[in-house]
Amino acid sequence: MNLILLEPGELGAAGDVSLSGARASHLRDVLGASVGQTVRIGLLDGPLGTGTVESIAGATIVVRCAFEASLPPLPPVDLLLALPRPKVLRRLWAQLAALGVGQIILTKAERVERNYFDTHVVTPECYRPLLIEGLQQARDTRVPAVSIHRQFKVLVEDTLDGLFARGIRLVADPSATKPVGALSADVKDRRVLLAIGPEGGWTDVERRLLEAHGFHCVGIGPRTLRTDTACVALLTLVNEAIRTQET
Amino acid sequence: MNLILLEPGELGAAGDVSLSGARASHLRDVLGASVGQTVRIGLLDGPLGTGTVESIAGATIVVRCAFEASLPPLPPVDLLLALPRPKVLRRLWAQLAALGVGQIILTKAERVERNYFDTHVVTPECYRPLLIEGLQQARDTRVPAVSIHRQFKVLVEDTLDGLFARGIRLVADPSATKPVGALSADVKDRRVLLAIGPEGGWTDVERRLLEAHGFHCVGIGPRTLRTDTACVALLTLVNEAIRTQET
Repeated sequence: MNLILLEPGELGAAGDVSLSGARASHLRDVLGASVGQTVRIGLLDGPLGTGTVESIAGATIVVRCAFEASLPPLPPVDLLLALPRPKVLRRLWAQLAALGVGQIILTKAERVERNYFDTHVVTPECYRPLLIEGLQQARDTRVPAVSIHRQFKVLVEDTLDGLFARGIRLVADPSATKPVGALSADVKDRRVLLAIGPEGGWTDVERRLLEAHGFHCVGIGPRTLRTDTACVALLTLVNEAIRTQET
Repeated sequence: MNLILLEPGELGAAGDVSLSGARASHLRDVLGASVGQTVRIGLLDGPLGTGTVESIAGATIVVRCAFEASLPPLPPVDLLLALPRPKVLRRLWAQLAALGVGQIILTKAERVERNYFDTHVVTPECYRPLLIEGLQQARDTRVPAVSIHRQFKVLVEDTLDGLFARGIRLVADPSATKPVGALSADVKDRRVLLAIGPEGGWTDVERRLLEAHGFHCVGIGPRTLRTDTACVALLTLVNEAIRTQET
């Protein structure tokens, strides 16, 4: 936890917040907080800031917050992901938030089992705390927007332009030779939507549909990676291409 | 399992192997193997090849193997990693092998707890099957060499030149501004050794010692990542820089 994140509703009128539970334990046991000490804080979907410990009474720590004027930038990448196995997705939420994604669009695909959509791991009760865990790790406040789509064709043909209006669309494809970085030259000031298929890959029909809707195939070489490894690898390459181009 | 890997000792004189257990189940239940069918095989630390199913008798499947003449290339990256928490390392072994690393050099550091070295997860009995799982995922045969070092200073000053003689040494550092790709221009025909610190980072003394022994600091931006995410991210960037430079 490199940042203490607060829900907007937790904040008192004077900018003070009363913490208990995991965040208070972290302040006390890991940071060894004492009265007057300052700690990094952030408001969920709001600005970063500095908190000053006002009082420590048993399990409750009161922190007075001062926030920066502007919000941290929205991560420039969105993810379109064929719904992974629940066990894999569970592991992925915090990592995705830590790497930084603007939105996570989860979809059915031919090679995604339908019952994956009925699991706890696609409910906000499960994923929101995991996303926040990732943001606290990476010192960000922007909770990725999550949407879940049970019909791939409807998503790509009808819904996607509303979710991702302008920008570059990439689809990871094991047979593609064009590297992720090669498309970064065009990224300037625009967003990237990165599509990652299920363990068994997109079907030909699905890939053609994506290509017909503006997706360019990119590859990262001959090694086949598990979905969670592939997500981290591909998001890193897109983020790094954008980041190093900006500097 | 995108490849069935065999231990050299399993192979009969005529190039046949009798499989039972997980590999036979995979052949039967996932690939729906029938007599005469060919499957991708590989010999651990040897060549890739093709196996032809000769017989299926109950839980036992006999496969006749034909191997390629040459070995798959050794991954061009080695990893020097401050020993992560056992739970994290356990999750990491297969991912490292899937991404491709020549060797994994695990070390103590100031911010690594000494008792991590006493856990099952640093024993070959634990990690070799996990490494093989990663290789089977990525279709590689080369088992990463693993060495474990309890004294960081001794490792860097005395042992490291023997483990990694020639090549480029990089150390991931949150404050570094030089991107990983920037050093790839020099990589041609040489190996890269990538050092990744513990969750709390290297100490100043440790980083200075690494720099004094030829390590260049590289960064991937302001987001602090968990060790497992950072390993996947950084290995991907190095591998991709080398791969896209070769083409």
